[in-house]
Amino acid sequence: MTTLKTWVSVPKDSDFSIYNLPYGIFSLDENTLKVGMAIGKQIVDLSAVADLGLLEVNSFYFRQSTLNEFIGLGKELTNKVRLDVQRLLVLENSPLKNHPEVFIAQREVRMHLPVRIGDYTDFYSSIEHATNVGKMYRDPENALLSNWRHIPVGYHGRASSVVVSGTSIHRPMGQVKQKDASEPTFKASESLDFELEMGFVIGKNTKLGERISTKNAGEHIFGLVLFNDWSARDIQKWEYVPLGPFLGKSFGSSMSPWIVTIEALEPFKVSGPSQQPEVLSYLKCDGNQNYDIQLEVGMAPKDSNETVISTSNFKYMYWNMIQQLAHHTVNGCNVNVGDVMASGTISGKDEKSYGSLLEISWGGKKPFEMKDGSTRTFIEDYDTITMRGFAEKKGVRVGFGEVSGTILPSV
Amino acid sequence: MTTLKTWVSVPKDSDFSIYNLPYGIFSLDENTLKVGMAIGKQIVDLSAVADLGLLEVNSFYFRQSTLNEFIGLGKELTNKVRLDVQRLLVLENSPLKNHPEVFIAQREVRMHLPVRIGDYTDFYSSIEHATNVGKMYRDPENALLSNWRHIPVGYHGRASSVVVSGTSIHRPMGQVKQKDASEPTFKASESLDFELEMGFVIGKNTKLGERISTKNAGEHIFGLVLFNDWSARDIQKWEYVPLGPFLGKSFGSSMSPWIVTIEALEPFKVSGPSQQPEVLSYLKCDGNQNYDIQLEVGMAPKDSNETVISTSNFKYMYWNMIQQLAHHTVNGCNVNVGDVMASGTISGKDEKSYGSLLEISWGGKKPFEMKDGSTRTFIEDYDTITMRGFAEKKGVRVGFGEVSGTILPSV
Repeated sequence: MTTLKTWVSVPKDSDFSIYNLPYGIFSLDENTLKVGMAIGKQIVDLSAVADLGLLEVNSFYFRQSTLNEFIGLGKELTNKVRLDVQRLLVLENSPLKNHPEVFIAQREVRMHLPVRIGDYTDFYSSIEHATNVGKMYRDPENALLSNWRHIPVGYHGRASSVVVSGTSIHRPMGQVKQKDASEPTFKASESLDFELEMGFVIGKNTKLGERISTKNAGEHIFGLVLFNDWSARDIQKWEYVPLGPFLGKSFGSSMSPWIVTIEALEPFKVSGPSQQPEVLSYLKCDGNQNYDIQLEVGMAPKDSNETVISTSNFKYMYWNMIQQLAHHTVNGCNVNVGDVMASGTISGKDEKSYGSLLEISWGGKKPFEMKDGSTRTFIEDYDTITMRGFAEKKGVRVGFGEVSGTILPSV
Repeated sequence: MTTLKTWVSVPKDSDFSIYNLPYGIFSLDENTLKVGMAIGKQIVDLSAVADLGLLEVNSFYFRQSTLNEFIGLGKELTNKVRLDVQRLLVLENSPLKNHPEVFIAQREVRMHLPVRIGDYTDFYSSIEHATNVGKMYRDPENALLSNWRHIPVGYHGRASSVVVSGTSIHRPMGQVKQKDASEPTFKASESLDFELEMGFVIGKNTKLGERISTKNAGEHIFGLVLFNDWSARDIQKWEYVPLGPFLGKSFGSSMSPWIVTIEALEPFKVSGPSQQPEVLSYLKCDGNQNYDIQLEVGMAPKDSNETVISTSNFKYMYWNMIQQLAHHTVNGCNVNVGDVMASGTISGKDEKSYGSLLEISWGGKKPFEMKDGSTRTFIEDYDTITMRGFAEKKGVRVGFGEVSGTILPSV
């Protein structure tokens, strides 16, 4: 990595270093949404930079309420914009030094969902998570289903209810069948959970019938976000056989506002777990395809300090994004710019790295203690869940900020 | 029903009678998509009618590539447009008589997907279909799963791959685990199927956290279409446990181009099957909520005559659309204009009314004969599947036209 030094003030532990420069959608007032790039504690207003004639992209693409139009320009241009801004933030004689209006403090803006999500897919790609779930709900001796090591198992999720970090979510009501009850009842979920995930955003369309190979998959990935796949375990349990999760998930999913480009994450690639048995040839891929991204989950009761309840890493994933995308399109299913594909819960081997309360409290059987002395098995009303993630290597840090959400009582 | 007589020539058996007037998107050339209304063998170009100052909606809403903007105006306006056009087509001194340019022959246009589908949901609401599947794959004595009579079971489908009638679809490739094989193989699906369904289009948004009651659900339904949920049974079988159908469905789903408004279908409401045990109160609804819509499926080998292989009726559905929508939103999941919710396979009690080849050929065990002497269990390359549907009562016919699609060899 070339060492880069920016003239913009960036705190040493900032996720938004000069090496990162993620894209997001911000607004200063209700009606004006624009494309910005995070640097330190500030945002570069890209429409203002374009208006100065310093970018090869017309400012029209930055005066948008989502990134879809900009991403749709293609990687050649979007990468160039990122590198051009990087150069402008490094250059001693940068023309931006005379244009302080280009910089806006992050604390002054509201962040929005960065993309218009056509379709949202959720995978189930952590072997530790799938094994833990299998142990709890099925056969502890035979926890993994027979298809799991052959297929990056996934399902279609609800796109309409994906919200940006900071959006509160009401505890869902739904049908639940309690143990030993003969009939279901309608009630507020009593086992509300989070799932620590990462999601990737599609950067290039395909047509129906077209297939993305593992070799080309990288061209179709624009960048990554943190993703919280809120889950109501009791609702999910009663509904999910045989057609999968539905209302146990669709009451809300949260994503972080800044999309970190796949190019910014390139230095943090690492090898993934060995895959046994060997995967089918359309799922084989060369080189390191996992990413060393440190993750943590904090839980804070109302007006109280946060307790970090999970410390995981994206590199644990058994199935990588390249494989997920090759699998998703192997039947000819088309993808569109802005589609989001989430990883599934990211759990590690260690109990401290479990990415859901289902695993942390082992199905509600093992309550755990919070800093304020209260205990939890699942999420209580007014609890706030915050997920953070960053990659770091040789003093270079590229991070995601956070995805945070508070659970409000049911309506 | 008031008897209406139009001065436009409408064949006696036309689906598009003066009582129907469905909305669709048509084009005469590649670049100009517009909103039209079907009458007999013609289309009323609504942008032209609006330009004449005869509608209360600005022609901007009719110069669109989807109906979303128009539907978003709300039922008060969209219903008024339909009734105003109806009046113009009945009126002896209609100003449209002097404007032949308003009418375009259906055979001269290309029809397009009528809505931009944000989310597509597929239900599983025919008790006969669910029972048949349960008999084949699970326990013949206990075919229905325990949740089925309590929940209108459904799952999120893939919105990007929903296409308009007339679009050919390639046979999907995918992972299949053959009987007695120890490992899966990658191959073209050998049990490609259709599912005879109807879908409804959402006409009014809700916000996240909001619930639609069975009482208000009707306000959120704009209209109905015919829907073919193409299914690759072998791919589906290997992938669907535990998270539901994925690549076995997402290679393509087809819908008819004309959206028949729920108001046009009002005269054809009938009672549904008795629901036992009693449903939870949020699923209870008053009055007749099923619709007597006669359905048929034709199958035609390449360059050969069609054989009608199924004759079913939408009135058989155990769960109605009102219940599906109330269930879908009971957890606070938001819906948007243009979302499509399909019924699931519409099978009746009689074998002749089975709505999928899985049932008709009983899992491939009972080949059936076609008019040309060939036999089928599942779909072969170049077979065309065409679904038709109409309601008829006292000489009044309101129909859907057709949804048709040809299966091409795998890529």
